Amino acid sequence: MERRKFLQYAGVGAASGLTGCKGESESKTQQVSTNTNKTWEWKMVTTWPKNFPGLGTGAEFLAKQINAMSNGHINVKVYGAGELVPAFEIFDAVANGSAQMGHGSAYYWKGKYSALQFFSTTPFGMTAMEMNAWLYHGGGMELWQEAYKQFGLVPAAAGNTNVQMAGWFNKEINTLEDLKGLKMRIPGLGGEVLKRAGGTPVNLPGGELFTSLQSGTIDATEWVGPYNDLAFGFHKIAKYYYYPGWHEPGTTLECFINQSAYDELPENLQSIVMTACRVANQDMSLEYIARNNDALNTLVNEHKVDLRKLPDDVISKLAELSQEVTAELGYTDPLARKIFDSYTEFYNKSRAWLDISERAYLNLRTG
Amino acid sequence: MERRKFLQYAGVGAASGLTGCKGESESKTQQVSTNTNKTWEWKMVTTWPKNFPGLGTGAEFLAKQINAMSNGHINVKVYGAGELVPAFEIFDAVANGSAQMGHGSAYYWKGKYSALQFFSTTPFGMTAMEMNAWLYHGGGMELWQEAYKQFGLVPAAAGNTNVQMAGWFNKEINTLEDLKGLKMRIPGLGGEVLKRAGGTPVNLPGGELFTSLQSGTIDATEWVGPYNDLAFGFHKIAKYYYYPGWHEPGTTLECFINQSAYDELPENLQSIVMTACRVANQDMSLEYIARNNDALNTLVNEHKVDLRKLPDDVISKLAELSQEVTAELGYTDPLARKIFDSYTEFYNKSRAWLDISERAYLNLRTG
Repeated sequence: MERRKFLQYAGVGAASGLTGCKGESESKTQQVSTNTNKTWEWKMVTTWPKNFPGLGTGAEFLAKQINAMSNGHINVKVYGAGELVPAFEIFDAVANGSAQMGHGSAYYWKGKYSALQFFSTTPFGMTAMEMNAWLYHGGGMELWQEAYKQFGLVPAAAGNTNVQMAGWFNKEINTLEDLKGLKMRIPGLGGEVLKRAGGTPVNLPGGELFTSLQSGTIDATEWVGPYNDLAFGFHKIAKYYYYPGWHEPGTTLECFINQSAYDELPENLQSIVMTACRVANQDMSLEYIARNNDALNTLVNEHKVDLRKLPDDVISKLAELSQEVTAELGYTDPLARKIFDSYTEFYNKSRAWLDISERAYLNLRTG
Repeated sequence: MERRKFLQYAGVGAASGLTGCKGESESKTQQVSTNTNKTWEWKMVTTWPKNFPGLGTGAEFLAKQINAMSNGHINVKVYGAGELVPAFEIFDAVANGSAQMGHGSAYYWKGKYSALQFFSTTPFGMTAMEMNAWLYHGGGMELWQEAYKQFGLVPAAAGNTNVQMAGWFNKEINTLEDLKGLKMRIPGLGGEVLKRAGGTPVNLPGGELFTSLQSGTIDATEWVGPYNDLAFGFHKIAKYYYYPGWHEPGTTLECFINQSAYDELPENLQSIVMTACRVANQDMSLEYIARNNDALNTLVNEHKVDLRKLPDDVISKLAELSQEVTAELGYTDPLARKIFDSYTEFYNKSRAWLDISERAYLNLRTG
């Protein structure tokens, strides 16, 4: 039966130009016969050091998925930051076609268009589950596509850190007063919030954080969470480790693809690329859940890190300022407004539901 | 360059029997040339009514992903419960090869092997995020594979409901006393817990719940959550809608595949099938987040449903009994013990981490 089916398909494949008029299974098989002889060599440039735990390994995971599912028809090779282009030039490199794919996070490109930050994370914004639900079942992805289209790029969510840690501090945070004058490495919207709370946000690349914190150039720094933070050795030079990461409650990592390179692919390979991104998106998030606690245990039990929760009144003030900063970002232009409205509407709904499901359950099991 | 690469590959493909000795890209391309002419017609039997929201549509989503990515090389057709075989016979149907794939949930097969319930959900157990992290980054999947191997099946996680609702009640639950004699439709481990709390668990198929609750044959029933519950119309006949779903905090849906059918596929198609399952797994979970709140709004604001939280002392007792029931299940035989130990070890870790990340964040944003 399979053989007969194939012969029938082959007959259809021989007739050209009928794809649009034929049934789904027939038009698909036309692609089988036309595309098996072609392979695509793709470069993926990233903002991470090669194989950086979680983030860089997530990019490798994505490439492997594409290569395996496409049976080598697409052969993606991953380049760490600086190997082909510096970290913050990958957006342009993919836009101009010198690489086909990039792996980073949308808030890095706020200089290109500030509202892109909505597709990474916002302070006191959505968690990983909510972001993905908005992107795939709430209209978020269509808006992201619209925002990247002007750069000739096709976006996909391709990873998530989940809720991060608030960061490493050498000053105790007991009241709002303690934020005044605090020199902290905290980029983006979180930095703007800290500034409005009286602090001094600075932006430094990851590689300079340890020395800056050690020398006292900064009083505090956020990074990611225990899995990545342990590797950086912050516990050796910082007094307090604060949670939770109000400024990055579910940071979405991205894969973006050069539009022409994407359009050149037959449909099934496009589908493979997009599905691989979705699996990479979930997998990174799961890996962080699995690894963060082991690292936290090491930090707390072995290195005796002083783990602290940010005080309630500090949280309240930061929440209020976050809402202000996020709304301002949403009012910059018509597309930003459309993104902001969609994000906000979805978030209000998901928050109400998660309050009586996920949150209620996490609380009751803790007692 | 692409053309040259292909020619080089084709040469390798012509030499046979060298797959194991050649580099990765070479052996892959051997598959390209040998497998493009073959298609597989697969049947997916399910425990859901055809296109049942969330669950049945999740099975369709999975089939579409496989069909699209494989370019029709695998053509999966989905059958609703009863179309080919009744809902609870799909496990045997796939095991004996009359269908290639099944879509259900592992706790349905507890009659085959009771410890399979760990791969669905346990009362007061892991959430969706934790279950997936355990399966893909904590050794859970290997144990699931071991458990299904004896039936000639290959398992995959292929959906999740997230935290469910506690259910629809016609009796108020204010104290532990109110559970005594309560006739409630609640199958599986949750039912056993209710029994130990003095209640009378009954198991009824979904189609009989409305009438049974209406006629007073049962005092209460659990089902899934607002999205599915609204469609069933329980609000018309039940007084109270309780949360959260302590008995099913993150129910994993599954896809299982006949081992011989799976082994017959070339590697890239196996990879496509497994990746499609992972995306279907995430997608269902996201769809529930996106849809549940709209349905909850309709229930509460339009139908004036009386939404209630289970009281703390009831929760404490149910938690204690759940631990007892789950541990007993884990002590039934050596494999069950291995599963239980792995589940418990992972859960203790993930719970500790989520306490200061996900839970702390969900609480602080609610204020």
